[in-house]
Amino acid sequence: MSRHEEPSYVPDFVPGEVLTTLGVSKVVESGHQDYKLGDLVWGMTGCEEYTLITNLESHFKINHPELPLSYYTGVLGMPGLTAYAGFFDVAKPKKGDYVVVSAASGVVGQLAGQLAKISGCYVVGSAGSDEKVNLLKTKFGFDDAFNYKKEQDLNATLKRCFPEGIDIYFENVGGAMLDAVLLNMRLHGRVSVCGMISQYNLEQLEGVRNLFCIVAKRIRMEGFIVMDHYSNYRKFEEEMAGYLKEGKINYVEDVTEGIESFPTALIGLFYGRNVGKQLVAVARE
Amino acid sequence: MSRHEEPSYVPDFVPGEVLTTLGVSKVVESGHQDYKLGDLVWGMTGCEEYTLITNLESHFKINHPELPLSYYTGVLGMPGLTAYAGFFDVAKPKKGDYVVVSAASGVVGQLAGQLAKISGCYVVGSAGSDEKVNLLKTKFGFDDAFNYKKEQDLNATLKRCFPEGIDIYFENVGGAMLDAVLLNMRLHGRVSVCGMISQYNLEQLEGVRNLFCIVAKRIRMEGFIVMDHYSNYRKFEEEMAGYLKEGKINYVEDVTEGIESFPTALIGLFYGRNVGKQLVAVARE
Repeated sequence: MSRHEEPSYVPDFVPGEVLTTLGVSKVVESGHQDYKLGDLVWGMTGCEEYTLITNLESHFKINHPELPLSYYTGVLGMPGLTAYAGFFDVAKPKKGDYVVVSAASGVVGQLAGQLAKISGCYVVGSAGSDEKVNLLKTKFGFDDAFNYKKEQDLNATLKRCFPEGIDIYFENVGGAMLDAVLLNMRLHGRVSVCGMISQYNLEQLEGVRNLFCIVAKRIRMEGFIVMDHYSNYRKFEEEMAGYLKEGKINYVEDVTEGIESFPTALIGLFYGRNVGKQLVAVARE
Repeated sequence: MSRHEEPSYVPDFVPGEVLTTLGVSKVVESGHQDYKLGDLVWGMTGCEEYTLITNLESHFKINHPELPLSYYTGVLGMPGLTAYAGFFDVAKPKKGDYVVVSAASGVVGQLAGQLAKISGCYVVGSAGSDEKVNLLKTKFGFDDAFNYKKEQDLNATLKRCFPEGIDIYFENVGGAMLDAVLLNMRLHGRVSVCGMISQYNLEQLEGVRNLFCIVAKRIRMEGFIVMDHYSNYRKFEEEMAGYLKEGKINYVEDVTEGIESFPTALIGLFYGRNVGKQLVAVARE
């Protein structure tokens, strides 16, 4: 149980046990008729060189081994499906929609923004450093981006970025950003709630004051979890593999070598040291 | 513009002009080919004995004059359609759902709760006096009800009323009630946001702190306004007229006589003096 007295959707880590992470694995021994030696799969695995996979309901065989296998921890795996489900199934975009993505330089945010561009939307991202803002505008094709740490008044920032208002908010942070977005939403706006990371480590949660906008503007705000969308995985995998091959989606990775680099790579995440998806290469094909 | 710097969905009152209200009218003169002398209509009219109706897009002819005509200002009119649209179209109930309604003794709340009972749901209402709580349990068939002014801890109250959690919240008040409901929602719960009356006259809006529940529980929170649902009016009118004739829906009115009683009746609303829908009878059939 988390300190909010509510169960989370991921079991709490028990000290002494092997950490779990998203990984790509090759079958070296199998007791299951559907899996044979040499099959490639992705899913939640132990952070170890050899791992026992029993949770097959959250593993998928890899259908596009011609693409980098590492992509299956990111753009072709759970983070990719998260962006896809949250943007298409929850936010239900229309061509020409005005879209804002928070924590936009994270893998999910990057992809949500690029899927919005592919869908003919206007997309602005928020991120926490000038380097990330620059990456959003150059590498990931966002129409605009801003460093929220440098903005005095997020309401004014959003009014500047969206003079006609916002149709879709792909929400990763919560708190003050959500409050400012609500004031700038258009009629029938949608808030697709992927996470509220600004609130997770606060002793005292921030209050969101502008929820009255939900009535006057008929806003739909909806949370989602990728596991509920696994039935769409094959459709997503084909579509995303196509975008990658056509160069319509850009994706970057930061790779460290060897299982012994895992602790450093993990801790680096909390300091924002990585720019692309952080990977640890344990073995290579 | 309201003090929240956002346009409301009803134009601000201009001192010196005639007040508007929901009314039932009989046509005494008509310049429109679809309306003839003696036709009965309901919609937004001036608070006066004779009124000029030009906003025909928000007026409807009355199809069931065999029921009390006054019902068309309430259970068969805009408040009724509000409850119907917010409960069926927005909250999308399933048989057996656990439902909580705030401001439940108001006309919309009463009807939302009774529609929930007709749909096979378990319904609890909150209200602001013991008299109202009693009315909910006796007259309107709620399974349970509580006086929120007497509860120390709304979270504990809801845990007591809903040991298995809440599927649907028909939201009329916002603030602390919404925060407590979010903590008690079940997976895939729905918050149908009809209003947030607790916030409308505050100098400093209350913050809602438990929005992180929206992700973990995949909650959908959606605002609505009855005008968006006028296309369903005829379907609603037939269904509700049927429930009234079968005695499946109870409805109470407080009637004062004469246009001169209007100011007293209006001011009484702010003190909660009325129990049923407050009406002013200007002329009778």
